[in-house]
Amino acid sequence: MPFKQFMELLLNPMFDSFYQDDIDAVNAKFEAQKIAFAPLSFQAARALRDLGILELVSSSRKKGIAIRQIAEQLKLSEYGIGVLMEMGLGMGIFKLKRSESSELIFTLGKIGFFLLNDDMTKVNMDFSEDVCYQGADDLMKSVMTGKPEGLKRFGPWTTVYEGLSQTSEVFQKSWFGFDHFYSDLAFPEALPIVFEQKVKHLFDIGGNTAKWAIQCCKYNPDVNVSIIDLPGQTAVAEKNAKAAGFENRITTIPCNVLDESTKFPYGADAIWMSQFLDCFSLHQITKILKKIYPAITSDTNVYILEPIWDKQRFEAASYSLQATSLYFTCIANGNSKMYRFDELKQAVENGGFVLREAHHNLGINSYTLFRFQKKMNVYVTRFSAWTDEHPPKLNFVPMLFRRRLSDITKMVVQTVHDVSEGLSHTHVTFASEFGEIQRQYKISEGILSSGEVSPAQFSLSVFNIPASASSIVEQNMVGYSAVFSGNKSFENGLKEAVVPILSGREKERIFVFADERIPAEYATIAKYPNPVCALALRLSSKKTNAICELDYSSLPATETAAEQALYFLNNRLPQ
Amino acid sequence: MPFKQFMELLLNPMFDSFYQDDIDAVNAKFEAQKIAFAPLSFQAARALRDLGILELVSSSRKKGIAIRQIAEQLKLSEYGIGVLMEMGLGMGIFKLKRSESSELIFTLGKIGFFLLNDDMTKVNMDFSEDVCYQGADDLMKSVMTGKPEGLKRFGPWTTVYEGLSQTSEVFQKSWFGFDHFYSDLAFPEALPIVFEQKVKHLFDIGGNTAKWAIQCCKYNPDVNVSIIDLPGQTAVAEKNAKAAGFENRITTIPCNVLDESTKFPYGADAIWMSQFLDCFSLHQITKILKKIYPAITSDTNVYILEPIWDKQRFEAASYSLQATSLYFTCIANGNSKMYRFDELKQAVENGGFVLREAHHNLGINSYTLFRFQKKMNVYVTRFSAWTDEHPPKLNFVPMLFRRRLSDITKMVVQTVHDVSEGLSHTHVTFASEFGEIQRQYKISEGILSSGEVSPAQFSLSVFNIPASASSIVEQNMVGYSAVFSGNKSFENGLKEAVVPILSGREKERIFVFADERIPAEYATIAKYPNPVCALALRLSSKKTNAICELDYSSLPATETAAEQALYFLNNRLPQ
Repeated sequence: MPFKQFMELLLNPMFDSFYQDDIDAVNAKFEAQKIAFAPLSFQAARALRDLGILELVSSSRKKGIAIRQIAEQLKLSEYGIGVLMEMGLGMGIFKLKRSESSELIFTLGKIGFFLLNDDMTKVNMDFSEDVCYQGADDLMKSVMTGKPEGLKRFGPWTTVYEGLSQTSEVFQKSWFGFDHFYSDLAFPEALPIVFEQKVKHLFDIGGNTAKWAIQCCKYNPDVNVSIIDLPGQTAVAEKNAKAAGFENRITTIPCNVLDESTKFPYGADAIWMSQFLDCFSLHQITKILKKIYPAITSDTNVYILEPIWDKQRFEAASYSLQATSLYFTCIANGNSKMYRFDELKQAVENGGFVLREAHHNLGINSYTLFRFQKKMNVYVTRFSAWTDEHPPKLNFVPMLFRRRLSDITKMVVQTVHDVSEGLSHTHVTFASEFGEIQRQYKISEGILSSGEVSPAQFSLSVFNIPASASSIVEQNMVGYSAVFSGNKSFENGLKEAVVPILSGREKERIFVFADERIPAEYATIAKYPNPVCALALRLSSKKTNAICELDYSSLPATETAAEQALYFLNNRLPQ
Repeated sequence: MPFKQFMELLLNPMFDSFYQDDIDAVNAKFEAQKIAFAPLSFQAARALRDLGILELVSSSRKKGIAIRQIAEQLKLSEYGIGVLMEMGLGMGIFKLKRSESSELIFTLGKIGFFLLNDDMTKVNMDFSEDVCYQGADDLMKSVMTGKPEGLKRFGPWTTVYEGLSQTSEVFQKSWFGFDHFYSDLAFPEALPIVFEQKVKHLFDIGGNTAKWAIQCCKYNPDVNVSIIDLPGQTAVAEKNAKAAGFENRITTIPCNVLDESTKFPYGADAIWMSQFLDCFSLHQITKILKKIYPAITSDTNVYILEPIWDKQRFEAASYSLQATSLYFTCIANGNSKMYRFDELKQAVENGGFVLREAHHNLGINSYTLFRFQKKMNVYVTRFSAWTDEHPPKLNFVPMLFRRRLSDITKMVVQTVHDVSEGLSHTHVTFASEFGEIQRQYKISEGILSSGEVSPAQFSLSVFNIPASASSIVEQNMVGYSAVFSGNKSFENGLKEAVVPILSGREKERIFVFADERIPAEYATIAKYPNPVCALALRLSSKKTNAICELDYSSLPATETAAEQALYFLNNRLPQ
C-alpha cells in the first residue's frame, strides 16, 4: 500500500462536519423542519423550475420581479405563483430585494441558480421525481423486507434492470439521464493509470454500451477488450464497437458472474469493473470476486471504478451518493448501495484479493479507482535459530575475518548463512534490541579508563555491523535494512520484511533478528541475564517448498525483544 | 396604528436571510442537492424515526453505536440499517465518533434530537407523509388548475373538509394531529387582549369544537358566545359547550359566511376568527368581511388570529407556514394559504375595514392577533377661511382682550369661532409656519434698540398663543396641540388632526392653520409679500351634516405652508 494512501486511511479523511455537531439548537430545529416538510418543498422547487419561474426570476437579474408580474407572464394565478415563490424564499432559492414597494420583489439566490443551471442538480431532481418519488414512500418497507418495494408501483419485477425497458418514457429518460451523467466522467483520468502497466487483454465486466472498451482501444493501440455480460445483453456493445471500427479488438463473452456453477473465462491480464459492483450486495461482490479468482494469475490487475461516499471532496457529492443508495434499496434491487471505502475493499478482499492501490478524486465526481490483485500470502521457506549463549564457530568464514566479530554478529552470520546457502541472493532485514552491546560497553570502558577509543573497536561499533558482516560473508549485494525498535524490535522488524512481499513489490526476503548477552554491568538497569537469540527466516510469496505460511499477526508483549523472537520460534514455526 | 407597530412596518422586520445571499457556491450546490434528493432523504428520516433507530442511537449517548449493533437489536439487515444511517449522517441527523474501530460509530446529532423528541417536528413529519406525500406529486398541476389535484388520490372531493371523515384512519390522525397542535396555543395570550374592552356577545366564526368559546366563558363571567358555522356543523361545539357547563352562554348560529344571498346575524360586539381565514382565498376573505360589514357597528371589534409567515420570530416557523401553504394548494382546497401580513390586512380592509392594532408573537408559534373595525372616514362638517391681509374685527371678543391680539391670533380666533359656534367643544390642532412673527420681530427690534424686552410683548410671544387665545374666547377646555413643521405645516398639522379620528380614538376635532404677513425686513431671506391665510376645519367621523368627505392625501409641495392651505381651500373644499 503506497505511503500516501496509508496515511490517508490512518488520518481518516472524512469531513469534519461528520464529527462536529456545531449547529446551534435554533438552526437544528430549522433543519428538522426542512426535513419534515421535504416532500412539499421538493415539489415546490420542481414546480418553480418546470413552470419557468426560476428562469423568469433569473432574467429579471438585479432588478428583481414581483409575483404579480410572473403570474401575468405565465398566465397563472398570483395565488399559485405566490405559494411556490414564498416557499422558494424560505428555501433560499430566492432572495428579496429591499424596496419601497408593498409587493415582495424577488431575485434569484445562489441555490436557485444551481437548481436552474447546474446539470447535475437537474439530473438528480428528475431522477428523484420520475424514478424515486412514488416508490420512496416504500423505503421503510424495503428496509424491512430486503426487497425494492417501491418498484412494485411500476411492475412485477425483482430488479429495476428486468423491467426498465417496460417503464414509462419519462421514467426511462430520467433513469438513463442519471446513469449516463455519472458513469463516464472518470474514464479519461482512469486510462493512463490502467495502461501504465502493459495490458494485452482486458475484460470489461458489465461494460454494456462498450464506452470504456472503445476508449481503451483508442487510447492504446495494442489492447484487446472483451466485454463480459449476461448472455444476450451484449448486442448494443457489439453494435457500438463496430460503429467505432473496433469490431476486431472488442469482443463479447457471455458469462453470469454470479453463477457459481459456471466458470469465469481465462485470458485476462486486467479486469475492469466500472460502476458495476454498486449494483450488488457486499455478499454478492465477494461471490463475484471468488468466481474471478481461479481464472487469473497473481499478476492480473483487477480495476474497480466506483464513486465512494467517504472519499469525496465535497459534502454535496457524499450526500448525493448516500441518497442514491436509497434508490437502490427501494427501487433498484433492495440490496446494493453506493459503498464506503472500507466495506467495498473488505468485500473484494474477502474474495481472496488484496488492495494494491487506490486513486481518489478521478473526474469531477470524485471516483475512486481501486487496483486489486490476488492476495499474496507470505511463506517461510527456510529458517535457522541460535539460542546458545556461546556464539557459533563459523568454520566457513575465513579466520582473519571471524576473529574480529562479536557474539551477535557471529550469530547473525551463522543463521543468515543457514537460510542463504545454495539459494539466490535477496534483501535482508536485520532487527535487534541491543545490537553490538558488548563492543559498545568496551568502548565506553576504554574512554573511562584511558580516555581513548580503540580504532579497531570503533570501526565495528555501528548498529548494522551484524548485517553488513553477513552480507560480506555471503557476498550478497542486494542490500539490507536495519531496524531498531526497542523491545518491539522483533515484531516491527518482521513487519518491515513482510510488507514488500504483501504489496507485491518483492518476491523474497530474509529476516534476521538477534540479541547477545548484555554486559553484567548493566544488570541494575536491565533484565540480566537476558535471553540470547538469533532467528533468521527466509520469506517468500511462493508456496513452493514452503515450510509453513508466515503468521505475522501481533505477538504478546515481552520485556525484551529476544523473548518475542523465542515465542515466535516456539509457537509459530514447526518444532 | 400604535407607534410600535408603525415602526415595525417601517423598519420591515423580515429575516435578514431573506435579503442576504451570503451562502458560498459550494454550500449552495450542497443545498441544491439536498433539495434534489429531498423525497429520498425525507423517507430515510422517517424510517430512522419509525423503525426506532433514532431512539437506539439516542440511548447509546456519548458512547455511540455501530450499524451492526442496531441491526442486531432491531433484527433487520445491516445493509438496510446502513443505507438509512449513512443518509442520516449526510443529513446531520447523526454524527460520527472518532474511534479506532473500522466500523463507523454513530451518535445522535442535534437535528436528530429534534426529529426524535420535538413534538412539532413529529407532527409536521406525520402530516407531510400521511396527508401530503402522495398528493404533493400533483402540486404543479394544482398551481396550473387552481384545484387541489392531490386530493383526488383520496377521493372525489372539492375540498379536504368535505372528504375528511371518509379518509383513512392514518390520514385523519395526522391531519387532526397537525390541526390541533397549531390551533390553540395562542389562546391564553389572546384572551386578556380581547377582554381588555368590554365584550357582551362575541361571535366565533368557524369555532368548530367550541374550544375558544369555552375559554372565553371561563375567562370572563359575563360574555356570551355564539359559534357561527355552516348549518349542521355545530353538533360537536354544542356537545362540548354542554360538557363544560356553558350551554346557556354558548349558542350556535348556522350561517354560510360565503353566501352573499343570506345576511350575517346581528348582535355581536366582537367578532372572532381563529385560524379560519387561512382556509379561504384573499378574494373570499374580502367577501366574508363584506358580509359581516352591515351587521356590525363602528365600535365592533373584529379579531383575527392567524400565524403570519412574515411575522415570525424564527425562520423555522416561517418555513413551516410557507410549506403549509402548499398543503392548501395541492390537498386542502387549491386556493388558500398561510398569509403574509400585508396581504391579509389588505384583503380585510378591502371589505370595508381598517386595522386598529396587531399583536405579534402570541403563543410559542408566534400568532398574530389583528383587531379590525369598520373603516372610519373623516368628514368636514364646517369650515372657515380668512385670506384678507387685514385681520378680522372680532366684534364678539371683549375689546380689552382683543386689542392685545396679533393679526395671526385674530384670524385663528375668528375662524375657530366660526366652526365652533353652537357646537360642543372638541380638541383643537393649530398649525403654522411662522407663528406670531410680527410680535417676534418687534421683540428682536426692541432688544437691538433699547437692550430691553417689553414684558407685555414677551408674555404673548410663544408659538401657541393663537390656539390658547382662541380657547379662552371659546371657553374650550378640551385641549389643543400646536404643530410647527416649516412649509409642510399645513399638511402635517392636518395629519395630526386626522389620525385620532382614523384610529377611532376621537370622534371630532378642529384643525386650524394660520400665517400672517411677515415683516418687510425679512424680504431678503423669505418670500415677501407672503400669502396670508387662516383655515379652520371641523372634522368628524360621522357623515351626519357633513359638507364633504375629507381628502387628506398628500398635497403639492409649495414655497410656504399658507400656499398649501390655499390650495386645499380652493381644490378640496366646496367653493
